[in-house]
Amino acid sequence: MPITEPNPAEYRSTLRAPEDFDAFWAATLAQAREFPLDARFTPVWRRAVEVHDVTFAGFGGQPVKAWLALPAGTDRPLPCVVEYPGYGGGRGLPHECLLYAAAGYAHLFMDVRGQGSGWRHGDTPDPAGGAPQHPGFMTRGVLDPHDHYYRRVITDAVRAVAAARAFPLVDPARVAVTGESQGGGLALAAGALVPDLAAVLPDVPFLCDHRRGAELATAGPYREVAAYLAVHREHERQVFRTLSYCDGVLFAARATAPALFSVAHMDASCPPSTVYAAYHRYAGPKRIEVYPFNGHEGGQAVQAAARLDFLDATFAP
Amino acid sequence: MPITEPNPAEYRSTLRAPEDFDAFWAATLAQAREFPLDARFTPVWRRAVEVHDVTFAGFGGQPVKAWLALPAGTDRPLPCVVEYPGYGGGRGLPHECLLYAAAGYAHLFMDVRGQGSGWRHGDTPDPAGGAPQHPGFMTRGVLDPHDHYYRRVITDAVRAVAAARAFPLVDPARVAVTGESQGGGLALAAGALVPDLAAVLPDVPFLCDHRRGAELATAGPYREVAAYLAVHREHERQVFRTLSYCDGVLFAARATAPALFSVAHMDASCPPSTVYAAYHRYAGPKRIEVYPFNGHEGGQAVQAAARLDFLDATFAP
Amino acid sequence: MPITEPNPAEYRSTLRAPEDFDAFWAATLAQAREFPLDARFTPVWRRAVEVHDVTFAGFGGQPVKAWLALPAGTDRPLPCVVEYPGYGGGRGLPHECLLYAAAGYAHLFMDVRGQGSGWRHGDTPDPAGGAPQHPGFMTRGVLDPHDHYYRRVITDAVRAVAAARAFPLVDPARVAVTGESQGGGLALAAGALVPDLAAVLPDVPFLCDHRRGAELATAGPYREVAAYLAVHREHERQVFRTLSYCDGVLFAARATAPALFSVAHMDASCPPSTVYAAYHRYAGPKRIEVYPFNGHEGGQAVQAAARLDFLDATFAP
Amino acid sequence: MPITEPNPAEYRSTLRAPEDFDAFWAATLAQAREFPLDARFTPVWRRAVEVHDVTFAGFGGQPVKAWLALPAGTDRPLPCVVEYPGYGGGRGLPHECLLYAAAGYAHLFMDVRGQGSGWRHGDTPDPAGGAPQHPGFMTRGVLDPHDHYYRRVITDAVRAVAAARAFPLVDPARVAVTGESQGGGLALAAGALVPDLAAVLPDVPFLCDHRRGAELATAGPYREVAAYLAVHREHERQVFRTLSYCDGVLFAARATAPALFSVAHMDASCPPSTVYAAYHRYAGPKRIEVYPFNGHEGGQAVQAAARLDFLDATFAP
Amino acid sequence: MPITEPNPAEYRSTLRAPEDFDAFWAATLAQAREFPLDARFTPVWRRAVEVHDVTFAGFGGQPVKAWLALPAGTDRPLPCVVEYPGYGGGRGLPHECLLYAAAGYAHLFMDVRGQGSGWRHGDTPDPAGGAPQHPGFMTRGVLDPHDHYYRRVITDAVRAVAAARAFPLVDPARVAVTGESQGGGLALAAGALVPDLAAVLPDVPFLCDHRRGAELATAGPYREVAAYLAVHREHERQVFRTLSYCDGVLFAARATAPALFSVAHMDASCPPSTVYAAYHRYAGPKRIEVYPFNGHEGGQAVQAAARLDFLDATFAP
Amino acid sequence: MPITEPNPAEYRSTLRAPEDFDAFWAATLAQAREFPLDARFTPVWRRAVEVHDVTFAGFGGQPVKAWLALPAGTDRPLPCVVEYPGYGGGRGLPHECLLYAAAGYAHLFMDVRGQGSGWRHGDTPDPAGGAPQHPGFMTRGVLDPHDHYYRRVITDAVRAVAAARAFPLVDPARVAVTGESQGGGLALAAGALVPDLAAVLPDVPFLCDHRRGAELATAGPYREVAAYLAVHREHERQVFRTLSYCDGVLFAARATAPALFSVAHMDASCPPSTVYAAYHRYAGPKRIEVYPFNGHEGGQAVQAAARLDFLDATFAP
Repeated sequence: MPITEPNPAEYRSTLRAPEDFDAFWAATLAQAREFPLDARFTPVWRRAVEVHDVTFAGFGGQPVKAWLALPAGTDRPLPCVVEYPGYGGGRGLPHECLLYAAAGYAHLFMDVRGQGSGWRHGDTPDPAGGAPQHPGFMTRGVLDPHDHYYRRVITDAVRAVAAARAFPLVDPARVAVTGESQGGGLALAAGALVPDLAAVLPDVPFLCDHRRGAELATAGPYREVAAYLAVHREHERQVFRTLSYCDGVLFAARATAPALFSVAHMDASCPPSTVYAAYHRYAGPKRIEVYPFNGHEGGQAVQAAARLDFLDATFAP
Repeated sequence: MPITEPNPAEYRSTLRAPEDFDAFWAATLAQAREFPLDARFTPVWRRAVEVHDVTFAGFGGQPVKAWLALPAGTDRPLPCVVEYPGYGGGRGLPHECLLYAAAGYAHLFMDVRGQGSGWRHGDTPDPAGGAPQHPGFMTRGVLDPHDHYYRRVITDAVRAVAAARAFPLVDPARVAVTGESQGGGLALAAGALVPDLAAVLPDVPFLCDHRRGAELATAGPYREVAAYLAVHREHERQVFRTLSYCDGVLFAARATAPALFSVAHMDASCPPSTVYAAYHRYAGPKRIEVYPFNGHEGGQAVQAAARLDFLDATFAP
Repeated sequence: MPITEPNPAEYRSTLRAPEDFDAFWAATLAQAREFPLDARFTPVWRRAVEVHDVTFAGFGGQPVKAWLALPAGTDRPLPCVVEYPGYGGGRGLPHECLLYAAAGYAHLFMDVRGQGSGWRHGDTPDPAGGAPQHPGFMTRGVLDPHDHYYRRVITDAVRAVAAARAFPLVDPARVAVTGESQGGGLALAAGALVPDLAAVLPDVPFLCDHRRGAELATAGPYREVAAYLAVHREHERQVFRTLSYCDGVLFAARATAPALFSVAHMDASCPPSTVYAAYHRYAGPKRIEVYPFNGHEGGQAVQAAARLDFLDATFAP
Repeated sequence: MPITEPNPAEYRSTLRAPEDFDAFWAATLAQAREFPLDARFTPVWRRAVEVHDVTFAGFGGQPVKAWLALPAGTDRPLPCVVEYPGYGGGRGLPHECLLYAAAGYAHLFMDVRGQGSGWRHGDTPDPAGGAPQHPGFMTRGVLDPHDHYYRRVITDAVRAVAAARAFPLVDPARVAVTGESQGGGLALAAGALVPDLAAVLPDVPFLCDHRRGAELATAGPYREVAAYLAVHREHERQVFRTLSYCDGVLFAARATAPALFSVAHMDASCPPSTVYAAYHRYAGPKRIEVYPFNGHEGGQAVQAAARLDFLDATFAP
Repeated sequence: MPITEPNPAEYRSTLRAPEDFDAFWAATLAQAREFPLDARFTPVWRRAVEVHDVTFAGFGGQPVKAWLALPAGTDRPLPCVVEYPGYGGGRGLPHECLLYAAAGYAHLFMDVRGQGSGWRHGDTPDPAGGAPQHPGFMTRGVLDPHDHYYRRVITDAVRAVAAARAFPLVDPARVAVTGESQGGGLALAAGALVPDLAAVLPDVPFLCDHRRGAELATAGPYREVAAYLAVHREHERQVFRTLSYCDGVLFAARATAPALFSVAHMDASCPPSTVYAAYHRYAGPKRIEVYPFNGHEGGQAVQAAARLDFLDATFAP
Repeated sequence: MPITEPNPAEYRSTLRAPEDFDAFWAATLAQAREFPLDARFTPVWRRAVEVHDVTFAGFGGQPVKAWLALPAGTDRPLPCVVEYPGYGGGRGLPHECLLYAAAGYAHLFMDVRGQGSGWRHGDTPDPAGGAPQHPGFMTRGVLDPHDHYYRRVITDAVRAVAAARAFPLVDPARVAVTGESQGGGLALAAGALVPDLAAVLPDVPFLCDHRRGAELATAGPYREVAAYLAVHREHERQVFRTLSYCDGVLFAARATAPALFSVAHMDASCPPSTVYAAYHRYAGPKRIEVYPFNGHEGGQAVQAAARLDFLDATFAP
């Protein structure tokens, strides 16, 4: 892929929040909180790193899975990184994501309901179905913000922070959220909806400025929106209205924790301008790592090192 | 595409029905019949052909949409063709499928729940969700035959015949089922589960010999099964057990109405041997049209002419 | 495909007509009229819709095939829709295009000489050959406007309207022309060259602003022009001069019947700006349906519904 | 491309000549001979190699172009290589093919009527047109052997040998024919239809065992046949009957001059078994160079060296 | 990708070792041992897992890099897993591969000279070829076994085991070798050339039965061999002779430690039969995990779990 | 490919030469001149054109191969065209490039070290990297201008002119340099570094404005730079600094011989603006042929004719 846009950093989104955006999420989260969190932790992998199988009550009180990993022999609360997977992936197997535990942190890696059959596997159902949709998850329930798939997932993402904090060896004052692509979009959502996070680290975030994404992306799940609208031509306005409720550009404007973004200028799945759209709106202290010759893989281990540095500084006593 | 298999007509499937196959479907259909059919017909397009919007209670009593088209001015019961869409498509708009009505028959064109956002659009929800799945519909609920997506769709397909028969201007003794690809697979299912059909006309049917399809197809929805198993490696046996409950090879062995099949030898989505697998097992009188240089589009208008000829002969008083 | 051009609606073509453009067509049509039209109609499909096989004398008096379909039992003249196929397709089989007859209109569907082996099949020869050409039809005789393939096809298109009017059950005062892609380009040509049409309905028209098409299209027959010029580098000026004689932008400026256009913003075969180029020049009352998330398939059944609405209003007594 | 067939050298074609095959060609050539050859030679490039523009009367007496190149200052008759272009290419510019002249031979490089706009450019029209065809040349007139495009081209190819012999500095007793792909197929045809050639050198020849080619090729012009039959399903038998009149397998069985073939085992356009099909039937002394890791490009300069060695031995006094 | 070969497990390779195969490697390793190993370990990442930067003298005494990771606070020798990267990748950053250390083992992850610019980055030059560069290694020096790139890499791989054993906290009696793709091929080589390994775990190994790989692979580095021979047609025999010196089929026949293989039946880069070719020849106790619906990614985390189980059993006191 | 950039001719590069650019090359060439040129010529193909195998001492005194071709029987010094191959190709076989000799000139066709396994084959090792190998040269030694692959190749290119002049039948006062793609980039380098050339003829030159090339090219070797930087993210500045030493934009500003450029507007490998970048900076009299509908193949034989015309005019006494 060549560069996908001439000057992506100059782009500013004109997206505006629907009037009831904040009320919508306040009501949604209030409704979720009516279900007890019921976070349960079962150790399943006990080696130099220990991994616990996690179940907590997400949207609708439905059980959501996660892993919680930390160094063996930990005896006092650790800072914790809550991570969300990229599109199509799940939490995988207990030994698949060991970076943060090996680095000395606690790490909660949330499953994404219904996903986890595209690459890294998942274990969490999405017990909801409904109106005709394009294959994939983007358009599941897309005609109404209340039915939309990401309403449920974002609620799960917020509850995942609570679940992490419920673990005895996690220091609830030092929790960061992160993720790549879809995971980055969810991190932005959590950044807006969880008031007291220590840091937000979205990498090449998806779910930002959906219309632009659907117009420009040549790969990845923004294409699902375009494909749906190529059939349901009459629903254009309605679809983008629904999607605005899960738009990272709007969440960014409501997040205040220190943030480390990353963007890749040859990204065909998440056009760089859509990432900058969220970055420019981000309301807290912020920095962005730029990868001019990378595609959607972004900074990978180099960015992981940057994240660890950022977290070390953030979590330092 | 070149020819996809050297001698597809010689292939014989070794697929065997699970012991409770017939009981499973008897119970499923009995359960569906507990809901009144409640078929409603509303005229929406009144021209030289008239099209009625149809709603009937499918699986779980859930409303399923269809169109019923017939020549304007019809005054006595007509033979009826019940048709099912190909994968990803829905019933479309009222004026999209006019062949059978223009040919002088009644035509019920069923929507497929949840689909209809991939190409021709649909209006029927699938109010069920669940375990992690690969994007698409093939693996929705694939770990248990009772949860599997096609249990619901096949039940709808059987009920669609009843809905057609409920229309005053349809002669219930002269109903045929047809469809291309997924529609052909559903026609085979209806052929097995509806005892008194006049004809079964499956074109390049999908949903036949799923393992072989998943191993050989280079395009189309059999790939979803392969993709799911590439992640959920542990579920191989379970997945193919579930899929056997909706396998056209097994339905074919239970169908007895006269049948007209078609097969395309350069078909990358439904490898021709999988079509022959069903054809060889078909228990009624049968014939197959062979298209040696076609891909999954099969015989198109040429096959449509063959179908009309076959129907004329079948329906002739 | 993402959107193919940032702001296609703002584009204005600078194409100018060759000085003898009108004389060229006047002479060409006069020459065609020297051959008696000799339109013959043979019923071949008699059901709820009746279809007649049509032969008429096109360019050079050569026989051109068509279907004429109308509701069975019609007893007084109907408005008629004359339709032209997309590139590579022919008139198909008698039962392939039943929309307009089912809707209560007469419908003449012209074959395109030489084509009809790429998808829907055709029956009309192009008894002309000649200078080296790129495979396909775009560059057949492209070095001289008099030899060019589309001179013959456009003449056929004009004559097709006369053939439709020659059918006893067609009301000659109420004839519209339509078509998708190439068919849309031919509708524009007929719109300019037939003075008394009731409506012109070009969908995602091809044959508009050829140089821009050849520069920007990433698929479809404009690529043939680019491919030809990649070999015959010395003929650039000559080729575009020839092509200007069949350019929809120039025809649009000469057409005055009410028009309904459509354009798709993700169209890789007919870049949307080339469609707007013709639309902006159109000399009659006009409207354009915009499909922002569609490719070259355009509006399909949704646009068909729009066309029927437009025709109903146009043809209403 | 990987190897395209497991053991291509073991394949034997079952193709049989139509009963009138020899009569057909005898009549065709007799008819061509009724037109005087009228070979004209005009020097156009006079340097260390001299190139003459050639025109001779081909099929129907229609003018066919060629280049005749030879070393400057030649003063006694030279052996001559008559070469035919690959599909889509023409004779190009005078300085494009200098190998044989630089090697000290005369070289006549025939244009292929109608082609020469796909890559190397051409100057010879095909003043025939007609029935609907798939873009390209394979199916031009394919419903009748008398109308088929290759009847004209093969006649031209035979006449090209006569044209070469008409040049004063060509030794008519020492003429070889060669070509790659389509050129190789034409060389086989000339080998069968010109009785006194010194050698036949077909490289990765096309036009051999058409049905197998249409079934197995994944690229190249055999696909045109498959594509045509995917639309004109009813013409399968007729098409392959016509194509048998230009099949290299049948020509090979009628050729007796010493032959040097070449074949490439990863050839996606001319499946190697189709080449072996012709090779095994070849009636004269023969040898084949095998390129196990090449695609349709075959042996290129390595094969050129082999051809020069073979010609040196053949033409040695 | 569909399955790439019908019955890959039945394939047996006919590859035979060159007469001096064992002498060649004995001499090569003896020559390498003339350079002191000079393994140096520098801690660079000290967290819950500790990672040491490793340098040791590989082929020609040239410095080769690696990481050695183990749980922080280890105080007695651990079993060790020596791992080799897949083609084009290097050792990456210190925190990129933490599985084995998190699982409680020592882990030496060798860099592959010259590689590490295709995906995971590398730091080891190939001083016969220069600093790390973008891929193209298969044919570096391929005309002579002594010059061939893999002679150097395999020597490095053998020396890497010695380097691991030189680390104070590694138990030299309990060392296993593993890797995916190229890493699996190198593990087989080490399995043959290091006499006292505890286990050999090659996953979807590359470098096995090179001719079959070059003939059948449709992706990956076997294609480089085919591409080279498509140009250097004259070197076919010589190239495969050279490659036989680094062929895993021959190494397998010389390895005796317990082995756990894996193979994927839809693998386009390492055709499954080439993996079975090595497996069938393997001289020690062996088992193979089969992934019928996976491509070259093979078993991923599922296979990692299988490897950990196998290692636990192997290393258990 | 459509046009790759809207207005490429308007682009101006901002690339600036590193301060020591001229000193770097002066030192490099001085160092090369310390080795005697030792040009040796062995006739290997004696026909109407004679071809000599050439060896001369290039960078580091290392032997570089070439062909020198000229008309047989030449008896007085001829003007000479020195040509450099495109990326991945070598000098080929003696009879592969006969144009200039057939046109009456001497022609030295240099091999490019290490290349010549991608298409036309080569015979010159790069002893910093080994015998010819499959592509991957752009980043060989890219971290230091002194180690970089193109420092060696450009030195060879300069020495090739000296080698041509050492041939008795070459007129040293009349030497031109040319080449396509990489060959065009090398011609620009020679144009700057050899003071007394008669002409410089770069066609669709590669190696111009590397950063823009790496950002915009969708094919070809500029992609190697982007791919390298996608892994070695930390070396961005260093890589482009190294590449600036072999940038045709900077060489163009130092060349004064009359020049004939060519550019293709649909070139995906060498974006046209990068060619114009060099053209606009070119310091001598210049002209550029524009091919608006060609890709990287550029003008081919048409441009060859233009080159011959230009050379005739240049070399005329």
